[in-house]
Amino acid sequence: MSKDNEGSVAVLEQPAQRPAPPRKQNGTVKFGVVGYGYWGPNIVRNLQSMSGVETTAVCDVSSAARQRVHKNHPQIYVTADASEVIASPEIDAVAIVTPVWTHFDLAKAALESGKHVFVEKPFTSKVAQAEELIELAERKNLKIMVDHTFLFTGAVKKIKQLLQEGLLGRLYYYDSTRVNLGLFQHDVNVIWDLAPHDLSILDYLIDRRPEALVATGEKHLNGLEDVAFITIYFPDNIIAHVNVNWLSPVKVRTTLIGGEKKMLVWNDLAPDEKVKVYDKGVDVNTHEGVYNLLVNYRSGDMWAPQLEQAEALRHELTYFINCIADGPVAINDAAAGLRVVRLLEAAGKSVRKKGALVYL
Amino acid sequence: MSKDNEGSVAVLEQPAQRPAPPRKQNGTVKFGVVGYGYWGPNIVRNLQSMSGVETTAVCDVSSAARQRVHKNHPQIYVTADASEVIASPEIDAVAIVTPVWTHFDLAKAALESGKHVFVEKPFTSKVAQAEELIELAERKNLKIMVDHTFLFTGAVKKIKQLLQEGLLGRLYYYDSTRVNLGLFQHDVNVIWDLAPHDLSILDYLIDRRPEALVATGEKHLNGLEDVAFITIYFPDNIIAHVNVNWLSPVKVRTTLIGGEKKMLVWNDLAPDEKVKVYDKGVDVNTHEGVYNLLVNYRSGDMWAPQLEQAEALRHELTYFINCIADGPVAINDAAAGLRVVRLLEAAGKSVRKKGALVYL
Amino acid sequence: MSKDNEGSVAVLEQPAQRPAPPRKQNGTVKFGVVGYGYWGPNIVRNLQSMSGVETTAVCDVSSAARQRVHKNHPQIYVTADASEVIASPEIDAVAIVTPVWTHFDLAKAALESGKHVFVEKPFTSKVAQAEELIELAERKNLKIMVDHTFLFTGAVKKIKQLLQEGLLGRLYYYDSTRVNLGLFQHDVNVIWDLAPHDLSILDYLIDRRPEALVATGEKHLNGLEDVAFITIYFPDNIIAHVNVNWLSPVKVRTTLIGGEKKMLVWNDLAPDEKVKVYDKGVDVNTHEGVYNLLVNYRSGDMWAPQLEQAEALRHELTYFINCIADGPVAINDAAAGLRVVRLLEAAGKSVRKKGALVYL
Amino acid sequence: MSKDNEGSVAVLEQPAQRPAPPRKQNGTVKFGVVGYGYWGPNIVRNLQSMSGVETTAVCDVSSAARQRVHKNHPQIYVTADASEVIASPEIDAVAIVTPVWTHFDLAKAALESGKHVFVEKPFTSKVAQAEELIELAERKNLKIMVDHTFLFTGAVKKIKQLLQEGLLGRLYYYDSTRVNLGLFQHDVNVIWDLAPHDLSILDYLIDRRPEALVATGEKHLNGLEDVAFITIYFPDNIIAHVNVNWLSPVKVRTTLIGGEKKMLVWNDLAPDEKVKVYDKGVDVNTHEGVYNLLVNYRSGDMWAPQLEQAEALRHELTYFINCIADGPVAINDAAAGLRVVRLLEAAGKSVRKKGALVYL
Repeated sequence: MSKDNEGSVAVLEQPAQRPAPPRKQNGTVKFGVVGYGYWGPNIVRNLQSMSGVETTAVCDVSSAARQRVHKNHPQIYVTADASEVIASPEIDAVAIVTPVWTHFDLAKAALESGKHVFVEKPFTSKVAQAEELIELAERKNLKIMVDHTFLFTGAVKKIKQLLQEGLLGRLYYYDSTRVNLGLFQHDVNVIWDLAPHDLSILDYLIDRRPEALVATGEKHLNGLEDVAFITIYFPDNIIAHVNVNWLSPVKVRTTLIGGEKKMLVWNDLAPDEKVKVYDKGVDVNTHEGVYNLLVNYRSGDMWAPQLEQAEALRHELTYFINCIADGPVAINDAAAGLRVVRLLEAAGKSVRKKGALVYL
Repeated sequence: MSKDNEGSVAVLEQPAQRPAPPRKQNGTVKFGVVGYGYWGPNIVRNLQSMSGVETTAVCDVSSAARQRVHKNHPQIYVTADASEVIASPEIDAVAIVTPVWTHFDLAKAALESGKHVFVEKPFTSKVAQAEELIELAERKNLKIMVDHTFLFTGAVKKIKQLLQEGLLGRLYYYDSTRVNLGLFQHDVNVIWDLAPHDLSILDYLIDRRPEALVATGEKHLNGLEDVAFITIYFPDNIIAHVNVNWLSPVKVRTTLIGGEKKMLVWNDLAPDEKVKVYDKGVDVNTHEGVYNLLVNYRSGDMWAPQLEQAEALRHELTYFINCIADGPVAINDAAAGLRVVRLLEAAGKSVRKKGALVYL
Repeated sequence: MSKDNEGSVAVLEQPAQRPAPPRKQNGTVKFGVVGYGYWGPNIVRNLQSMSGVETTAVCDVSSAARQRVHKNHPQIYVTADASEVIASPEIDAVAIVTPVWTHFDLAKAALESGKHVFVEKPFTSKVAQAEELIELAERKNLKIMVDHTFLFTGAVKKIKQLLQEGLLGRLYYYDSTRVNLGLFQHDVNVIWDLAPHDLSILDYLIDRRPEALVATGEKHLNGLEDVAFITIYFPDNIIAHVNVNWLSPVKVRTTLIGGEKKMLVWNDLAPDEKVKVYDKGVDVNTHEGVYNLLVNYRSGDMWAPQLEQAEALRHELTYFINCIADGPVAINDAAAGLRVVRLLEAAGKSVRKKGALVYL
Repeated sequence: MSKDNEGSVAVLEQPAQRPAPPRKQNGTVKFGVVGYGYWGPNIVRNLQSMSGVETTAVCDVSSAARQRVHKNHPQIYVTADASEVIASPEIDAVAIVTPVWTHFDLAKAALESGKHVFVEKPFTSKVAQAEELIELAERKNLKIMVDHTFLFTGAVKKIKQLLQEGLLGRLYYYDSTRVNLGLFQHDVNVIWDLAPHDLSILDYLIDRRPEALVATGEKHLNGLEDVAFITIYFPDNIIAHVNVNWLSPVKVRTTLIGGEKKMLVWNDLAPDEKVKVYDKGVDVNTHEGVYNLLVNYRSGDMWAPQLEQAEALRHELTYFINCIADGPVAINDAAAGLRVVRLLEAAGKSVRKKGALVYL
């Protein structure tokens, strides 16, 4: 689910006189897709397999990428000019699957052109950009969905359900490790590359707002942090920690979540039993004397609930179509995207100051 | 190897008139052991199995503990009075296997009584105490060894050898996770309980001195941090990270070490192949254009060297006997113990200030 | 790599007057593919991605399968009539990707029509059929390749290389477990479904010919064995064992190979380090007294060689194209297919007689 | 729990005039232990820690073993003469922890001397011996317990409970793998060394009597089978399979048990969650047409019940003491021991005939 290699676009030129893209037909939601790198093909493939949806045009500045589109989907119009997609009257919604530094300009143009927007995470490079897009979308009555794909996986859905049902009791901590020999990015550090997954997940799972964070890390190769650790403080003593690393010999995707009543481990690389719920915990009884604090350990069965198997991205795109038709974007709307960007921006600030506490 | 449950002692009383403990014999190093809780029995068992060494007396304030000593080792003199052990003219060396807050007084009394000292980690509760003991030992020409047991395991020995041979190339990072449903301590937080293992190991493996650290954490149960994360900055962009947690449903003892040429994973819970060395890495080539930074990934064989199997504590005690006889304590002397206490003290300061950078 | 769901075909009718399929062009090898169930699409996809090869026509009796062909590959001619593919003068080679009971008739017709044949494993339902096809192919100077895909995986290639280099020393045993909650077949038992993988691999790796076998098993659901165990005796005390099971709660794909000098474990489900070579073994020294047999254990490093990552089927199809052009089919020719069918036929005989020894 | 290295005894001499062993005291069950090799010390240690029981004398022909007894338990009488233990009027019960070929003579002498017998598995070397001992014990009204230790582990207890409660539904198969680089025995092959564990467990878990078996295997080093595979046929299509191997580079202790409703995996080497119960299965519906057999797969949650942690051997010895006092030996009596020996004898016969079917 990692989006290692974004599609590429030139910075948007002023849309000039241009040959007409394919014309609009009735009855289906027409998508234009900007960016056909690593993740774009998954968007197109899923859109193609859904009913009531159609991908009308795909843009990428790389000719090799455009040729791949044409080979796989000969019926789709291909262009190197993003403005051709964005401005097309045929198109209802634009999926922006390009590097983060291009998101703002592309999304802004799409919204101004009256299109709904489905945009890769992280939403934007800056908090101010996200705020501007939110304001613009509201004014134009258009939807923005940020591609926080993990929220639509069976694992995260199940964990959310367990938390909502109170199975874990009061939440104590969330601790995620996301490391591997990563694809180095030229434009962002490991925090902006890997942590958006974790930040979007914990934003969804933890129903409090973070208060402050501390980020530490180090650069070894190309002047960007390749190893980083983020601690996030929440109200009520909830603490989150995210360990991201591009220089790990092994791939790890493991999250520990500890609660008062139960604790769980989510190992996203396990072929089966990705989520294991442990009937383990600690009870503290205060006795008469202050010093006589008694800690009792509970240890019971382990239970691995069956998880929904369907492809998360397909779920998410279906959800987007439904939101366009008649509802608000709930769990991964632009506000969620903004919250993640705010955490990323704060983490960047903290890591540059060697772990300074940054309030949110 | 975790020392969850220390032996207990009363705070030292002034040694008064007391019945004579067993008298000294020629030819062997005589040990007195103070503390017979979780770890003390291992010390005694190992000393008993070695030649040229003898445990002459064991002290514990718990009568149950004293009865266990007597049942297992009827020939050993048992007492509730630590000063009886410490002051005995029969005894050459004292092993202090008690809670950390008692180390200073016991060690000081032992040194003043002319005994060599083998003391549990962490060495002392405060930097100033460690410094005072070092000065005292030097003045009295006595040895202090701090029980950094892990340095004597096959895994750490092999990793040290690989680093010294330059197999990993320039060191990038050290990242350890040490979590489980831990035994809550009344007197120390999770940093003082679990991190001394990691801090003593990285003090040994990394041949630079740490410059600063950042520690974050949270308290959930008894007013002491039960979850904590420490980042330590070293010269030359080396970074270390230690994740300790008493509230984890699963036990994890895994350390990633990344270098320029190779990377390794040490999983101390693996029944075999605890250390895996990966021929993986990244080469960065700068091209003419600044932007054209080329990152090449290498991925080759994995290799799990056979590790020495012998019990680490036995190795360490043998090393101590040899040091008493004729040499300096090299790798886990009081100076090493002091460096670990300095890191712990700094981590405590940082965690109380929500991750403030503390220079070392 | 399991072929759970074969494409389906009607039993071949006499080819009558039929509309001409696409005509032959110069310069490329033209393939017709019969069967587009589970595995057929992989054949077509790989052929399409290779240069100098082309899939001209695909046949399947299922209209849903034909529609899938058309959707994915609109340029390919689609038909429900296998004889139309087989008899087409446009076509040089036929890939037969249908249930085993149809292989003989289809392959025979293809050979008689002058086509090379690439046929799914197991080659045929009976030894006599395989022998007849071999004779026919030789007479017509045509190639037959049996799709023993595993021989083209990085793991099997590496193991073969290690054996050829003598790294393991004299071979002692080969022990494979291939179990999971399998797709029940209507026409074959678990031996014919799962064991062809193992039998083709051990036929390739062990450079002796098996002498006899014993198979045991049991039926629980549909009148066909769903659990079975095969022991195969080779010369020089080499023994092979294959455990296949459609009723296992967990998926296992693990093979142990023991040799005089080294031993290895191949876990095909491991994401990395699929093949681990252990420097372990036993040396037996006979002393003067008969009774004083001394057994010494060796235990050294473990080593996981990097494996070739490319898709095995693509390798295999490339190899087939090269064989058609100018060489013999070496490792997975019809003779290898026949040897596997001979083992399957013997295993079927043995299992029906509750483990009777069947000579080969 | 493997008993790799039995205590050693000379073949019993006629008990002659001998110095009196310690005299009997009232109120406790007095044990004599014959054999202090690998497993004997565990017997003695457990007996020593239990109340109402006492080990009075230990015999071993090895002087090193006798010295170990004396060092660890100075209060225990030590002798090289088994008859001294067996004939002592002080002793109520004899634990026989010696190689299997000595069991019959020692147990017979003990029974004749009026002692209860706790004997290592396998019970005897031959079926006829087991039958004779059973008859003798009945006549003398003495108890025999065979040390099928695994029956007293948390894992086997839990599995037995699940089977008794019907959780798995009708039993389909039992498939065990027990392999490692084993300690070669001079007197027995890998079947007699490792399979008694599995045979005693399946004798306990499966409430039918086996009908026949097939065993295959091979010898590579010392003239005894070091690799072997046993298939056991039970009524109602239940099948068991045991894979034992002294030449495996990795240690495996895994058992799959498949039932109509659920299936389980018992991995005895897992540090936690040794038993995992899968809500997986297959439903077969016969439709009108014979051919339209519909197989439906179920796949639900996985559940790892918490297992009792106590030491199995201590449980077993407590059970033996209780049986001596007032009850029959139920689950691991001499009849159970005989059933295991019968399977071993049959397996030996089958393996020598290359897998001949042997009825039981």
